[in-house]
Amino acid sequence: MIDKSTKFMIVGLGLIGGSYARALKKQGYHVEATDTRRESIEYAEKNGIIDKGYTELSPEAISGADIIVFALYPKKLLDEIPKYAPYFKKGAIITDVTGVKSCVVYNVQSAIPDNAEFISAHPMAGREVYGVENSDEKIFVGANFIVVPTKKNTERAIEECKKLGITLGFARISVLSPEEHDEMVGFVSQLTHCIAVSLMTCSDNTHLCDYTGDSFRDLTRIARINEDMWSELFLMNKDALLHQMDTFAAEFSTLRDLLAKSDAEGLKEKMRVSTERRAWFDKK
Amino acid sequence: MIDKSTKFMIVGLGLIGGSYARALKKQGYHVEATDTRRESIEYAEKNGIIDKGYTELSPEAISGADIIVFALYPKKLLDEIPKYAPYFKKGAIITDVTGVKSCVVYNVQSAIPDNAEFISAHPMAGREVYGVENSDEKIFVGANFIVVPTKKNTERAIEECKKLGITLGFARISVLSPEEHDEMVGFVSQLTHCIAVSLMTCSDNTHLCDYTGDSFRDLTRIARINEDMWSELFLMNKDALLHQMDTFAAEFSTLRDLLAKSDAEGLKEKMRVSTERRAWFDKK
Repeated sequence: MIDKSTKFMIVGLGLIGGSYARALKKQGYHVEATDTRRESIEYAEKNGIIDKGYTELSPEAISGADIIVFALYPKKLLDEIPKYAPYFKKGAIITDVTGVKSCVVYNVQSAIPDNAEFISAHPMAGREVYGVENSDEKIFVGANFIVVPTKKNTERAIEECKKLGITLGFARISVLSPEEHDEMVGFVSQLTHCIAVSLMTCSDNTHLCDYTGDSFRDLTRIARINEDMWSELFLMNKDALLHQMDTFAAEFSTLRDLLAKSDAEGLKEKMRVSTERRAWFDKK
Repeated sequence: MIDKSTKFMIVGLGLIGGSYARALKKQGYHVEATDTRRESIEYAEKNGIIDKGYTELSPEAISGADIIVFALYPKKLLDEIPKYAPYFKKGAIITDVTGVKSCVVYNVQSAIPDNAEFISAHPMAGREVYGVENSDEKIFVGANFIVVPTKKNTERAIEECKKLGITLGFARISVLSPEEHDEMVGFVSQLTHCIAVSLMTCSDNTHLCDYTGDSFRDLTRIARINEDMWSELFLMNKDALLHQMDTFAAEFSTLRDLLAKSDAEGLKEKMRVSTERRAWFDKK
């Protein structure tokens, strides 16, 4: 289990990788990192975010790590894992931070040698800015950490990964299968981003800037979006997201038809269900 | 023009009427109010929110008012105006607070005698609670006040109404025609409520409570909704809202098809437009 002698390696020192490093360092752990962007490594070393950094794969450093966190976009993760795999220490725990799972987890597990174990995780936290320079371990406070095991995972790795989430400062640690995770994320995260983007692109609404109240701002805050990351996440979770989009579109169309028919009672019933259901989320 | 001797009458002392009364009293004006709910009048008198209150139409009090604000739901406004019309003082300014205009303003103006003038306004502020007990003039701070004249209105009434918005503490005062207003409100307010409601009602998602992050909460905050008020607003702005719903649904469907075709470049282009356009709203 994670203890004070546990050595961490972060591969990919961006916003999330950097925030992992800060949180772990504050807890007193030894943290190293690899990133091809020299400025990131220099910044992190200078600011005490990591103990040591590398701008290319260091077999020696990888072999010395007990827990290796790949903080990379999903496609990049799939590309990089086979390059690192030969150097994993016996018993090492390998984990990730990607926002889609079914199309990632099984492939990564196949690429990991028997002496190490890959246990997937999704830290549901972020900011609308990028890079280690903006990293901040406080983004984990109050947030959800999802551990995403497959049948191949051992209890030990699942427990180790839960403990990582607690160590990082997350408020709630949950366990979901890759398929459950992707359905959930398709709904609460990806569908909401699709809606926000469509609200902004459906008409040239910039002349309405002066009139927007809080509701419009709330619904479109996430419409400022990193197109490389999100298009990749959408495409890698295509089936689950299409299902959620179709479910939402059908319901929106039902509401539209109630309005078109001037069915006041039907509209009110939808609003009552909505109000009651939303109240659950405020209790949490 | 509004000066220190101007006497106000608020008809309908709920959240908005009460907040008008508080703001005007703090500025030193004489404020009376009419509301059929005795508790509202008693509460307001006891707490110094108004100078004097009535639980039924007082012809004498109405004749004494320089500016009369009808703070009623739209249908109620249309019902009440003819009852009050015979008692308006010569030169009185009559205004309202309703959130839909085309189906209200022309009808109300036809019911007003020649010695007075109705100039419509929409204070774009609110809370998710009701009643004079929850009224608070601070809800106007930073908010938009829209003056909605027709061709029948005089410059004097338009200026008086703008001054009312300033006196109440609104940050921005704008002028729109009833049709422009309804298109705008259909987009920034009603469409966003339709989306939030549909997100909550499209599937039983309460088991996802534990996993929601800020984006889902932001998009559904307004899904807790007063079904009587909002169904009335939707139905009274039916054509404009249906148009906005159809525009949004078509765009959402386009985004869905880009995903179905795995068109990464098409998805990214939508996200770039969305990001660029949303940045305009943050500048404001």
